[in-house]
Amino acid sequence: MLRIVVAPSGFKECLDAEQVADAIQAGVRRVIPGSVVDAVPLIDGGEGSARLLARATGGTLVPATVTGPLGDRVDTHFALLDGNTAFVEMAAAAGLSLVPADGRDPGRTTSRGVGELIRAALDAGAERLVVGCGDSGVCDGGAGTLQALGVRIGDEQEREIGPGGAELLRARSVDVTGLDPRLSEVEMTVAVNPRNVLCGPDGVARRFGPQKGASAASVELLSSAMAHWAQLLDPELAELPGAGASGGLAAGLAGVLGARLRSRFDVFLTSTDLDQRLRTADLVITAEGAIDASTALGKIPTEVARRAKQHGKPVIALCGTIGPGADTSYEHGIDAITGILTGPVALPDAITTAPRLITDATARTLRVLLLGTTLPAASGQRPAA
Amino acid sequence: MLRIVVAPSGFKECLDAEQVADAIQAGVRRVIPGSVVDAVPLIDGGEGSARLLARATGGTLVPATVTGPLGDRVDTHFALLDGNTAFVEMAAAAGLSLVPADGRDPGRTTSRGVGELIRAALDAGAERLVVGCGDSGVCDGGAGTLQALGVRIGDEQEREIGPGGAELLRARSVDVTGLDPRLSEVEMTVAVNPRNVLCGPDGVARRFGPQKGASAASVELLSSAMAHWAQLLDPELAELPGAGASGGLAAGLAGVLGARLRSRFDVFLTSTDLDQRLRTADLVITAEGAIDASTALGKIPTEVARRAKQHGKPVIALCGTIGPGADTSYEHGIDAITGILTGPVALPDAITTAPRLITDATARTLRVLLLGTTLPAASGQRPAA
Repeated sequence: MLRIVVAPSGFKECLDAEQVADAIQAGVRRVIPGSVVDAVPLIDGGEGSARLLARATGGTLVPATVTGPLGDRVDTHFALLDGNTAFVEMAAAAGLSLVPADGRDPGRTTSRGVGELIRAALDAGAERLVVGCGDSGVCDGGAGTLQALGVRIGDEQEREIGPGGAELLRARSVDVTGLDPRLSEVEMTVAVNPRNVLCGPDGVARRFGPQKGASAASVELLSSAMAHWAQLLDPELAELPGAGASGGLAAGLAGVLGARLRSRFDVFLTSTDLDQRLRTADLVITAEGAIDASTALGKIPTEVARRAKQHGKPVIALCGTIGPGADTSYEHGIDAITGILTGPVALPDAITTAPRLITDATARTLRVLLLGTTLPAASGQRPAA
Repeated sequence: MLRIVVAPSGFKECLDAEQVADAIQAGVRRVIPGSVVDAVPLIDGGEGSARLLARATGGTLVPATVTGPLGDRVDTHFALLDGNTAFVEMAAAAGLSLVPADGRDPGRTTSRGVGELIRAALDAGAERLVVGCGDSGVCDGGAGTLQALGVRIGDEQEREIGPGGAELLRARSVDVTGLDPRLSEVEMTVAVNPRNVLCGPDGVARRFGPQKGASAASVELLSSAMAHWAQLLDPELAELPGAGASGGLAAGLAGVLGARLRSRFDVFLTSTDLDQRLRTADLVITAEGAIDASTALGKIPTEVARRAKQHGKPVIALCGTIGPGADTSYEHGIDAITGILTGPVALPDAITTAPRLITDATARTLRVLLLGTTLPAASGQRPAA
């Protein structure tokens, strides 16, 4: 009886991790109906994470209306989990997808709604807060979030600065006297990609500014703003691993509120008992929308593979697109990569039919795998490096 | 030491079988450098077959200039093989690719050049003739070929009919007194797809006319012409398996010259010692441009798989496109199907990069296969039906 752990990421702008896991599972059942599938849809803290985390852990989604990244009102939610832990998905209040394509300008967009979501979580009785970073549409160093929580950020004339990353350049003082007093009672963890730093050549403004809609000039301005902001709060934030997450939100929460930054996978993969479940697996199937050179840099498939390899388990990574540098993930515990496409196709059509493509590709891949079990034992070889 | 037979078809309008075999072989070497690869690029008798057959068997290509399908002159060749056997590829004299897209009309195009190639082969001393069908751009029942060999096809006034399938409707007599006398000394075999019949609802005009450029009206006219032609030569030709091959060329050669029609795979796969080579294989990799419902209807991958299964060998089929009904080939000895595409792409780009795509896909697939050899033996299962 083959025991298969199915631990995929979502396919961005296409399917969430649970839908991907369902589609893979259908493919497994088609080819090996007698297998035991343990589905562990994984999140990285970004868009859709609150919904999936609530579903996976038996938590609830609590609705809230907050200030959106452009100052509009956004109907959103946070997740209330076991033990009065609230999970606040920053993308649910200040995500890129909340900013219409023609309004994308991280010099103007604010993370204020994240602070309002945190307040709502405190109102709901949360005693622990986990803030999930990823997929943000802002670059305000968390200033908007802090302001929503009662922090006063003043300019040269002690006037409060306005919303958006560009305003940070005018910041001269940070006054926490008005801070929501409940925050001193709660433990706040920020789940980050530790590779995201606030400043320097690989800082958040330069690395993610363009995809958030920043012009070249705006990228440089925001880069200066982040440097200025670090100088004002704590110069060590400039290069602190993860402080650049979500347009520097992590820096603001760490620098002003003393929040703890933790690797998102340490936070989320632990919460799913993934290690325990990998221990008894015969095979691990992970997945992500694209496998390429960036996969080895802290994406879900290589995080899963790294843990699977600690137990010596074989790992197949399934993906929509196999991009340049995909082979580098072989060095990080992924044994084989398989794509889902069946013919020349435009991206929108591939997205529409993704669940079927994933199911069919899983089935085809497992047929190859099973064929391997029938090869003469003496011929079994590990692939060449 | 893994012994792998690589027995692909060409990818139509993209790579010939030898190029496909080379690309697969490169992928095998990347993942299992210690394996022994036995490359058997396969032909079906159609376009490119003469060149590949000559190369594979140590034969030579003999150049010849003949009448093209539109009456123009075409520089072409036939293959001279061991034992004074000439292989005449009909597509090299009357193939669809010799007809410009705006001149495609099988009511007008002629197979005359095929007869001229046969004469050239006789001039070169051929004692056995194999005519390979497939990829034709004509539908003249072989009339043009017969005329080039000295047969006189007369109309009501005993005047010779003109070129093209539409003229056949005017044919009233077939006079073989002028036939090249050398033909009575040679053995002529026509390599056909036995599923191609001359007449009826699935006859050659209806089945292939449209892709050769026939309008709906022209299809019906050519269908009548084929029926009339069978009536004139031998009514049994109407439904004889394979007589419809290459626009009825096979019917003309069988009906007038007594040529023997043989399944193309019986002819070509025998000539490559494929069975012998399959016998000692651990794994068989075949390939074709597309795997779909038609693959099971006498295409190279299923022909290879059928033979491989007589020796109990595992078969993987690699392809550019996985189309509807591909799964039906699992019932014909193909154990697993794998596609080469890595991302959303337009067909022309996929064609340009095909060799690399094939090599990479082979490597990825073998990694999955090798992973299978490491699974616990007890977990080995045959895929569900």
